[in-house]
Amino acid sequence: MMREFAKKSLVEKTAHKISMMIADKAYAAGQKLPNEYELSRYLGVGRNTIREAVRSLVSRNILVIKQGAGTFVSKKMGIADDPLGFMFVENKDKVLLDLIEVRFILEPPIASLAAQNASLREIHCLGRTCQEMEDALAAGQDPTDKDIEFHTQIATCSNNLVVPRLVPVINTAIKAFTSIEGHKVVAMTLSHHREIYEAIRDHRSYDAQDAMMLHLAYNRNKIRKNIFDKT
Amino acid sequence: MMREFAKKSLVEKTAHKISMMIADKAYAAGQKLPNEYELSRYLGVGRNTIREAVRSLVSRNILVIKQGAGTFVSKKMGIADDPLGFMFVENKDKVLLDLIEVRFILEPPIASLAAQNASLREIHCLGRTCQEMEDALAAGQDPTDKDIEFHTQIATCSNNLVVPRLVPVINTAIKAFTSIEGHKVVAMTLSHHREIYEAIRDHRSYDAQDAMMLHLAYNRNKIRKNIFDKT
Repeated sequence: MMREFAKKSLVEKTAHKISMMIADKAYAAGQKLPNEYELSRYLGVGRNTIREAVRSLVSRNILVIKQGAGTFVSKKMGIADDPLGFMFVENKDKVLLDLIEVRFILEPPIASLAAQNASLREIHCLGRTCQEMEDALAAGQDPTDKDIEFHTQIATCSNNLVVPRLVPVINTAIKAFTSIEGHKVVAMTLSHHREIYEAIRDHRSYDAQDAMMLHLAYNRNKIRKNIFDKT
Repeated sequence: MMREFAKKSLVEKTAHKISMMIADKAYAAGQKLPNEYELSRYLGVGRNTIREAVRSLVSRNILVIKQGAGTFVSKKMGIADDPLGFMFVENKDKVLLDLIEVRFILEPPIASLAAQNASLREIHCLGRTCQEMEDALAAGQDPTDKDIEFHTQIATCSNNLVVPRLVPVINTAIKAFTSIEGHKVVAMTLSHHREIYEAIRDHRSYDAQDAMMLHLAYNRNKIRKNIFDKT
């Protein structure tokens, strides 16, 4: 571990120090960083090194530069755009089915945990997102982002810190690989979502798990049919 | 989506084009990329732009530069070093327990899938890793990397393309957050691994799932005790 660190270039070491600085001082998403001059003095390296290190952290979604305003901690909080490198898997259809398989493993127990652990505020947020997705669809808008938000909020309700970082990664990848357009989501999805929401709201863990599994089975069939029709 | 793309800088656009080029031509991990001059001609941008784009792809673990030899597709295949940004979560103990909770959800069904789907070659590899971990421990070496390899190979045996990308991310994060040293892993872990391996080898799905759950429960207790002793 130490030897690996020694091999890194000064820019990489500086980038590592800045990210540790963010972690240690617990900078919040959206917070402004000290300027180049201050960072340069604080870390004892030249301003060119700081500039390159910052650029590398920007490409890793840890920092974001706002022209004229400064450098800020990215709201993506270091979650990479394609964190698991799905773009590089050749067989896209197989990836798609395997992503659904992972959702099948992950999301029903998460829904059960959510029903057990959700706070009143979290339940309120979840209900609102459920409603917003219904409204978006009624207005003829693409509800895909609301869909992903709904599933991410369930992960947040579970009170596990890891799954809200995992669920959007999986679901965004599915979105990227699906040729089915979001607004073709049928009424069935909405009624599934409402069923899941109501089970979580009423702290019925078993029912939440069950409703989530039904919802995913329905989606999987749709995606399988889509792939089958293509070939 | 298109508007977002238009806002990106020329360097980012070029980085995106190079990564699509890698994906489309299905460059394998470790394969050499065309040189700066060829890339510059092929993509119609200056060599400085190519150089910066390459640097950004290096920081995202998509490319790797070997001094004097050229630029290659990274063996990390775009899987980020801390892809889910765990470093930025404040409560490290809570993250650790939550990572274990995710393993509890994911790995038993994966072990079951592995027992169902593993090829002869995959079973052979898994057996060898099991043995190598036993040897490492007997020689007084830290077996942590072999441990992570064992669990990643089980994910590979499942024949799901996504989980082998997920399992090492979770397990490496656990390693980073654990103060228990790897070589203190006791004989119990080895016998668990062997039990899991034998169930997968014999295509006993239920037993594999069961053995994995026992193994994780044992680990969770150890980590809980460690956190409890600290406080």
